[in-house]
Amino acid sequence: AMDGAPPPTSPSGLSAYVAVSQLLGLTLLATTGAWLGRYRGGVAWHSPLQFNAHPLCMVLGMVFLQGDALLVYRVFRHEAKRSTKALHVLLHGLALVIALVGIIAVFESHRSKGIPDMYSLHSWCGMATFVLYLLQWLLGCGFFLFPRASFSLRARYKPQHVFFGIALFIFSITSCLLGITEMLLFKISDSYSHFVPEGILANTLGVLLVAFGLVVSYVLTREEWKRPPLAEEMALSMDFKTLTEGESPGG
Amino acid sequence: AMDGAPPPTSPSGLSAYVAVSQLLGLTLLATTGAWLGRYRGGVAWHSPLQFNAHPLCMVLGMVFLQGDALLVYRVFRHEAKRSTKALHVLLHGLALVIALVGIIAVFESHRSKGIPDMYSLHSWCGMATFVLYLLQWLLGCGFFLFPRASFSLRARYKPQHVFFGIALFIFSITSCLLGITEMLLFKISDSYSHFVPEGILANTLGVLLVAFGLVVSYVLTREEWKRPPLAEEMALSMDFKTLTEGESPGG
Repeated sequence: AMDGAPPPTSPSGLSAYVAVSQLLGLTLLATTGAWLGRYRGGVAWHSPLQFNAHPLCMVLGMVFLQGDALLVYRVFRHEAKRSTKALHVLLHGLALVIALVGIIAVFESHRSKGIPDMYSLHSWCGMATFVLYLLQWLLGCGFFLFPRASFSLRARYKPQHVFFGIALFIFSITSCLLGITEMLLFKISDSYSHFVPEGILANTLGVLLVAFGLVVSYVLTREEWKRPPLAEEMALSMDFKTLTEGESPGG
Repeated sequence: AMDGAPPPTSPSGLSAYVAVSQLLGLTLLATTGAWLGRYRGGVAWHSPLQFNAHPLCMVLGMVFLQGDALLVYRVFRHEAKRSTKALHVLLHGLALVIALVGIIAVFESHRSKGIPDMYSLHSWCGMATFVLYLLQWLLGCGFFLFPRASFSLRARYKPQHVFFGIALFIFSITSCLLGITEMLLFKISDSYSHFVPEGILANTLGVLLVAFGLVVSYVLTREEWKRPPLAEEMALSMDFKTLTEGESPGG
């Protein structure tokens, strides 16, 4: 930010953890693809394979992209907040659209096969996660994107936004694990207990989901890795603070 | 701590959240009992009902008691750290013993019925949670209970202990949700999709588990609610710090 200052560096360790998270994320997607491709006939839309679009979209949108959207403030810690925020909103928006496609896939697949909707714990948790995630996205846009929200209002909402952001990410992973368990007990209930390869592969996908959640949550919550405000943001927020406190001395 | 000082008060809101968490915790236990008692024949040890001891012990130990063990530093924020720490260790220890009984119940029940062990995602997640929880307890005792661990070593381990403590609590709840899903698909696979009362009740137990996890995690992670060090602890830790830094100026 300042002329003549040395180029900013990231805290030691952060880059390694982020690299591991991305490796885990890609392994996650590859494992989901391998399961669906090798044992479940692949993915297609207007076909009996439509259901398989559901796990693929949910892992891609609600886990990988949602996780990466949370990481942007750590990864791009020295970029202008404006650009990082835009990336954060866009990645979450993309995650929402892909998740919606995944939800449509399961409802259409159920309808074509005459299977009832929304009776299982997986469906309750998954739907709750999606609706709350959409709500969190809308609230986030309302508070942080539109210039009308005051500085003090933003400062009060921010800790809630961060807490529920991580909570919804973890809840998404939990919903995926419930979905894996359901799918295995529907499809291979007779052979699952004999440690067949499909069961081991899908269990491993579950373990990878937990590992991705752990690494991302660790990066997000580690105090020393939080994004420091840039010099110009500090000055700006001080101005806002003085302004706000000047307006309402009782607050 | 200081003579003549007004009696210490808790931050506003904290008591209400703790009360809600305890209400949720008790509802959790009651709902588990209702499920097992009303629909699963009750709980008994040397009998075909031995399996039912598993969900009861895991919800009581790995969720309710573990959650309360995490809350003690917030609830008893003005007590001496020594006593609060003792309660923290004892509650986790009790949780471990009860969880061990629950794990024995499922292995003995499987053996008597000829069901294979450790093939499902629930069993992988649950066993991993228990082993890591035991490890975390042992590490916690080693670092914080025995006087030989230096102040700087404790200070370095503490953030890890806190992060993995919350992570293991969440992982415990996830494992319970997987167990509920498994049990429903084993026991009422034919009627689950018809929204039978047992399915609704067990799904509701899952939702209550998530709610308990959310409220406890919120209380634990809210910055203003963290336990402030008492006046005498501040002085003590300063002494330690001076001592430690005096010993190794390069650290």
